[in-house]
Amino acid sequence: MKIICTRENFKNAIFNSERVVSKQTTLPILNNILFETERGILKLSATNLEIGVEVKIGAKIEKEGRISIPARLLSNFVNNLPTKGAEENIFLETNEQGIKIKSGTARALIKGLPAGEFPLIPKKTSAFLIKLPGQQLKNAILQVINCAALNETRQELTGVSLLLTEKELFFAATDSFRLAEKKLEITSKNINQENYMSFIKKKSTIIIPASTLIELSRIISNNEESTVEVAIEESQIFFNINGINIISRLINGKYPEYKNIIPIEFKTRAVVEKEILQGAVKMASFFSAGKASELTLKIDPQKKESRIEARSTELGENTSELKLEATGQAQDVVFNARYLLDGINTIATSQVAILINSPFAPVALKEINEQTGEVLDSFVYIVMPIKS
Amino acid sequence: MKIICTRENFKNAIFNSERVVSKQTTLPILNNILFETERGILKLSATNLEIGVEVKIGAKIEKEGRISIPARLLSNFVNNLPTKGAEENIFLETNEQGIKIKSGTARALIKGLPAGEFPLIPKKTSAFLIKLPGQQLKNAILQVINCAALNETRQELTGVSLLLTEKELFFAATDSFRLAEKKLEITSKNINQENYMSFIKKKSTIIIPASTLIELSRIISNNEESTVEVAIEESQIFFNINGINIISRLINGKYPEYKNIIPIEFKTRAVVEKEILQGAVKMASFFSAGKASELTLKIDPQKKESRIEARSTELGENTSELKLEATGQAQDVVFNARYLLDGINTIATSQVAILINSPFAPVALKEINEQTGEVLDSFVYIVMPIKS
Repeated sequence: MKIICTRENFKNAIFNSERVVSKQTTLPILNNILFETERGILKLSATNLEIGVEVKIGAKIEKEGRISIPARLLSNFVNNLPTKGAEENIFLETNEQGIKIKSGTARALIKGLPAGEFPLIPKKTSAFLIKLPGQQLKNAILQVINCAALNETRQELTGVSLLLTEKELFFAATDSFRLAEKKLEITSKNINQENYMSFIKKKSTIIIPASTLIELSRIISNNEESTVEVAIEESQIFFNINGINIISRLINGKYPEYKNIIPIEFKTRAVVEKEILQGAVKMASFFSAGKASELTLKIDPQKKESRIEARSTELGENTSELKLEATGQAQDVVFNARYLLDGINTIATSQVAILINSPFAPVALKEINEQTGEVLDSFVYIVMPIKS
Repeated sequence: MKIICTRENFKNAIFNSERVVSKQTTLPILNNILFETERGILKLSATNLEIGVEVKIGAKIEKEGRISIPARLLSNFVNNLPTKGAEENIFLETNEQGIKIKSGTARALIKGLPAGEFPLIPKKTSAFLIKLPGQQLKNAILQVINCAALNETRQELTGVSLLLTEKELFFAATDSFRLAEKKLEITSKNINQENYMSFIKKKSTIIIPASTLIELSRIISNNEESTVEVAIEESQIFFNINGINIISRLINGKYPEYKNIIPIEFKTRAVVEKEILQGAVKMASFFSAGKASELTLKIDPQKKESRIEARSTELGENTSELKLEATGQAQDVVFNARYLLDGINTIATSQVAILINSPFAPVALKEINEQTGEVLDSFVYIVMPIKS
């Protein structure tokens, strides 16, 4: 292999692929990025066997070839090239030991491993089903991802559920203590009509590993104005973002029927300034005792008042009074401070709606339309009160 | 105790004192800040028994008193008070359990410990000897502090040596592998003439714990336009920065006679762009083998060229060519990449002078006057080459 490409393209390609590279050392080939020339194009591939990334960049190819190179060392080389008055191109040439790299006044020989040892990354065999603006998809991921379980005792909870319906996509995650669900509306512009309709007839829910979506949202951040195409096959999901392919396994298993636990009606509805609620709950969490770090939220719709209280025999006690708009019954509910705070943090609007039925039933947080003041239904965070 | 003060003053006082508060739990009182009223002023004290901080703020004192309060909880309370449309004052009142705090809509009771249990912080009994601009002192500290030893087998090396002479202050630190020395020139404006002269006759070098100077530089950062007054007593040093007192023990013992190992003349003098040298050394460090991470610096004054090389049988090899201005003999010196890089990082000018005698003698890095191109003598970083 002998090629020339621009430093900027090369650097971006390494940046987009290196993060899935495994940090384990039992299989050294997984620490590598595979370089392959392919019809006037240089393709970089990286995988940790659960998720794979492929990046293609334009290059002047003087001699075709393939090789796998340690990602970390290559990235350190590229990221420390001098930036002042620098050579714009990077020259790569394989020899029997590895790859020779040259750019401006810097040269290196990096030892590699044969391309043949590199694991195969599954190829997409179907057409794309869905097309979404990158930012919209990224925001949906970030709003639900923290609710996915870290613990692997229930594999399906370590993923994000994606429910596909004719007009909507529902992203949901839960660790069984709290749940977040984000709805994206789709139109004919977002889908490959025929394929999509026949797909959702056969299968309407898939479970995507949380780690895959985290990687996807990072790559979207690095490609600001992007459109993400999604293809779904039997046990794989494929994303394409501005020419970058992400391939991931899907999680087998049945996702819990979470829709049943989201209440449709509530006895109390309160609307609070997000920032003020955030500060008060955070402050209370420092005073709350025990592992569950309990706090009490009291809402009095008649007095238009709310109190957040926490106390511990050891540390002391804390009360914050919050002005709010509320309708319905008075409430007195105990929460795990951490779970409540996580929910407030995911709210993207400046006001948050707290929707309560009783101290024993799921409580919902929702967003508020900044103009009309209406409660929005596109996102919901559900948290179970603590029975005190 | 019953007092009112402004939230801003109170918050700053907590910020400046809480960092020396101990994180250990064997002596709970050390996790606390001592609050004392003193002639219309509220004084906060914190100590970890090695270093103490005292901050004074104006307050309306309705009832005098003393109490000690857990620093972390207090800081969490103050830092999470609502900022929007907030009450400007904070109300504090002790009761039998601890202290009641109120600001705007937030209230807390924080349990405390009797003030009498709080350790005594030594009182300054002498006048200030030296007065320095805060930024100048902070920069001197930051340039030498990384060379102080972390390992406590030789206690005196965990400190920074301060040599006081009639016209200069020399800050120096070494872990016996490398050494940094910064010179500050002083005039009669900087010193309490009579006391200073009699002090340096008795004692010319003291050793200040590195942790004390790190804390001092942090407090200086938080008080941008500050003057720092310094008093030195038998086994204590006192700093005053805009009303904040720092009290620290000094390290007993004799600091190594380091001045002897700083060469006065050099056979080779090279001047390089700091940023380019930094990138090349950093890049080489990733290719260098073994724990010492060796790299070779070759300087050819005749060709006006320099090369930085590193190689490892496992990873590969790396070479960077650097343009430079050099006079004297050609050199070929092996360095520990980390130690060389640390030195380059502490250089505050855009160009760096590399001064070499032989591959077996101490090498110096110095700063370059941006206008005249002269080598400056106010800072020197000494690193021993590796004998290869």
